[in-house]
Amino acid sequence: MSQLKLDSSGSGLPLYRQLAEAIRRLVDTGELQTGDRLPATRELAGQLGLNRTTVSAAYAALEESGFLEGQVGRGSFVAARKTREAEPYFAAEPLDWDTLFPAGDWARPQAASPVEISFASSRPPEEDFPLAVFRQLAKETIESTELTEILQLGSPLGYGPLRRYLLAQAQQAGVARAGDDILITNGCQQALDLLSRLLSGNANRAVAVEDPVYHGLIRVLGPSVRDVVPVPVMEDGINIEALEKALAEKRPRLLIVTPSFQNPTGATLSVERRKAVIRLAHRFGSVLVENDIYSELRYEGEPLPTLKELDHTGSTILLRSYSKIAFPGLRVGWVLGPRPVVARLAEKKQWADLHSDHLSQAILLRFAESGELTHHLERTRRAGKDRLHAVCDACSRYLPSGSRWRRPQGGMSLWVELPAPLRADSLLARARERGVDYLPGSYFSSGQAARIRSLRLGFGGLSPAVIRRGVQILGGAAREELAAYSASAGLEPAMALV
Amino acid sequence: MSQLKLDSSGSGLPLYRQLAEAIRRLVDTGELQTGDRLPATRELAGQLGLNRTTVSAAYAALEESGFLEGQVGRGSFVAARKTREAEPYFAAEPLDWDTLFPAGDWARPQAASPVEISFASSRPPEEDFPLAVFRQLAKETIESTELTEILQLGSPLGYGPLRRYLLAQAQQAGVARAGDDILITNGCQQALDLLSRLLSGNANRAVAVEDPVYHGLIRVLGPSVRDVVPVPVMEDGINIEALEKALAEKRPRLLIVTPSFQNPTGATLSVERRKAVIRLAHRFGSVLVENDIYSELRYEGEPLPTLKELDHTGSTILLRSYSKIAFPGLRVGWVLGPRPVVARLAEKKQWADLHSDHLSQAILLRFAESGELTHHLERTRRAGKDRLHAVCDACSRYLPSGSRWRRPQGGMSLWVELPAPLRADSLLARARERGVDYLPGSYFSSGQAARIRSLRLGFGGLSPAVIRRGVQILGGAAREELAAYSASAGLEPAMALV
Repeated sequence: MSQLKLDSSGSGLPLYRQLAEAIRRLVDTGELQTGDRLPATRELAGQLGLNRTTVSAAYAALEESGFLEGQVGRGSFVAARKTREAEPYFAAEPLDWDTLFPAGDWARPQAASPVEISFASSRPPEEDFPLAVFRQLAKETIESTELTEILQLGSPLGYGPLRRYLLAQAQQAGVARAGDDILITNGCQQALDLLSRLLSGNANRAVAVEDPVYHGLIRVLGPSVRDVVPVPVMEDGINIEALEKALAEKRPRLLIVTPSFQNPTGATLSVERRKAVIRLAHRFGSVLVENDIYSELRYEGEPLPTLKELDHTGSTILLRSYSKIAFPGLRVGWVLGPRPVVARLAEKKQWADLHSDHLSQAILLRFAESGELTHHLERTRRAGKDRLHAVCDACSRYLPSGSRWRRPQGGMSLWVELPAPLRADSLLARARERGVDYLPGSYFSSGQAARIRSLRLGFGGLSPAVIRRGVQILGGAAREELAAYSASAGLEPAMALV
Repeated sequence: MSQLKLDSSGSGLPLYRQLAEAIRRLVDTGELQTGDRLPATRELAGQLGLNRTTVSAAYAALEESGFLEGQVGRGSFVAARKTREAEPYFAAEPLDWDTLFPAGDWARPQAASPVEISFASSRPPEEDFPLAVFRQLAKETIESTELTEILQLGSPLGYGPLRRYLLAQAQQAGVARAGDDILITNGCQQALDLLSRLLSGNANRAVAVEDPVYHGLIRVLGPSVRDVVPVPVMEDGINIEALEKALAEKRPRLLIVTPSFQNPTGATLSVERRKAVIRLAHRFGSVLVENDIYSELRYEGEPLPTLKELDHTGSTILLRSYSKIAFPGLRVGWVLGPRPVVARLAEKKQWADLHSDHLSQAILLRFAESGELTHHLERTRRAGKDRLHAVCDACSRYLPSGSRWRRPQGGMSLWVELPAPLRADSLLARARERGVDYLPGSYFSSGQAARIRSLRLGFGGLSPAVIRRGVQILGGAAREELAAYSASAGLEPAMALV
């Protein structure tokens, strides 16, 4: 029986089943024959360095299924061929999924008490959905003769009429150049995923990203990206000196930047800094990817040109989406970039899910073409301005002194730094007890050092009144937490005064 | 200048730009200072083993941008700091996408002449779409109070009402067990993709698949699967002896099987063979994945139980989709499996695209709940029976003698083996000249040996008359090809008769 070899870890089968299988193979290969006696359990356990109960369990399973025959006091024997092959030789059990596929770390722990006011997500408020307009345009779409094309299988690139519309719009605006093309994706999230797949098999799989950055980007880079290069984001956007150093040292294949109302910091790059980012990307040969899903949500100040417009080589890849500015339940975003890279992304898209759902693409096309998207955006911006005012005002009123934030001119989130010794993660437990939820800064860290005092207040989906109430509760929790720190500090033994 | 080091291949920057960058770094580090003279181009080219024109181009670019100053007859000098830092130091060029992201091999060469009759795809015929019913149900969906939920961001698991409906249906049918859950995907393609992502980072990434098999499965397994284990499919489905051998030797983590109307062979496993597949999966600890997107398209004979039903441990993962049986332009499929594995797939889904588009999920739920899907399936099966009859009848009439196929009882494709010396790939050129397209067997190979005489006739989307005409043209092309073989055989020098 010395030939017995068990699988090393990772097979997902319990050891006794691996042993039973190994014994079965010895019979298959003729090492053991009908009537042969197996070693005593103690003896075999010793030979193989196994627990004796493992060997007993293997023998028992093989006997139960008729593969071995046990004779009391004499041991276990290989059964006759006919008996052994009649049935599955042991009762199958459910698989051990935790061993097979270890769980990831994506899930946030649920709040113990019900959340009344959540600053945790950044999704548009559903009260503002223009339902009547949507119903009308959806009905027109459904009644149209295009319905057959909508319901039939299509191109990985997306629904033709929408692609043509978006490309023409981008050309008119000076964002698209000759040689650019468009791929429709399931929101911006899928665009990020397809970009990360583009790197799989690439010799250089390093990607430079902002730090802190949207947590969904960190997660999507996990499997295929060998090296995430974090570049700090300051109050005025990605730090240019740090970017130069990172690009020079790591030469990442991709550089992903959100120049307007970055998630989570809300930071926006000036035109000069945008140009500096482009120059650095050119200089070090990194492909520049511009995440531009928030720029339409500008409530104050003048719009700034995209990196895509400023990059006269036309190499920048621009990501946009209807999710943040229209209806996030309809998953329609797009990639605008040079045709060769769009073609490669379309290949990845084909094997990811063939193509994006047609119906929502067709309805959103009508929403944009009819001018209703523009109207909706105007309303959204007015409402957004009120929300932004509410959240900044409430922070001034209710957060403990020493708290810092920089008022963004748009977007959906405010990045708040609490005064020491407060920590965003420990404060969260107290805030949740009072019904208020948010995401602590650690959630957005792409680098080593998490910003332990920072937190993101996603205000985009809440009314000004709810925002005020939420920040008030948060401020109360913070003061309570500060008091607890002082109390415990008071309990520490006083130093001798010498 | 001996410290100059250029990037080895893969940076995507031309050599002269790499050299210019390297020179710039020497200035940054202080090795070169304002006013220093650079070596003559010939000299530096010799030192670095570069072409002299490369060095000249680097100097020229650095001079043009003010980083170096050229003095006629004296050489090139490092410019003053102020001059060097004023502007981008050389004109950026578009990126070389082919070097950055080498193209894949997914694209089929386009037919040179227009395709009149395509047996290449397997999509449902759009003439059979129940447009009036769809319009009615879509309008009801849009008018309903659920619209707000539909338009808002949702769960990675999918639209709640559809998930609950599908789970209840599966429980009623005895397919789902306690402890099972459902994840909505963008068609079956995305389910396959998410399963392959489940393996990324897993110690065992081997997957056993049928050979031949749906080409989209082979492509999706590419990036994250280290080892594709092909198992031959015979006329009665996956070969059980070969499967046992493959599982015993390779111990793949997943085993993906299409028991009914397999694509491309149309083969269906008997109940006995289904049980054997399950026993083998249990015995070797492989997770069994059942691709069940065709079983509803049974035109003849009795329905067979799914692997999921037969597997009393409940471990089998079942993939289904509305794409093949309703409207492929709406991308809605689902995974039914034990809750732990569905939760892990939902994690992958979240970072792939957050969740599937809600609107189509809501409309398809009404399509199913109202009984209209059942009516549509009845009509589809009647039409499918006519198509199946037409394609088999036409093959009997028009294909050259020695051609072989096995009539399936359903599905969308017929797998034809041509007689020697015909080859499916060379015949394709001739068929396309005559306006008929199909996919040769090589397209579906997951193993080493491609079936060079086999081809797939996707008949699901064509009317019986078009099918007959298409097979007639194909038969004519085959006979012409055979005649060409005979003619060229006749041209070979005759052997001396001794």
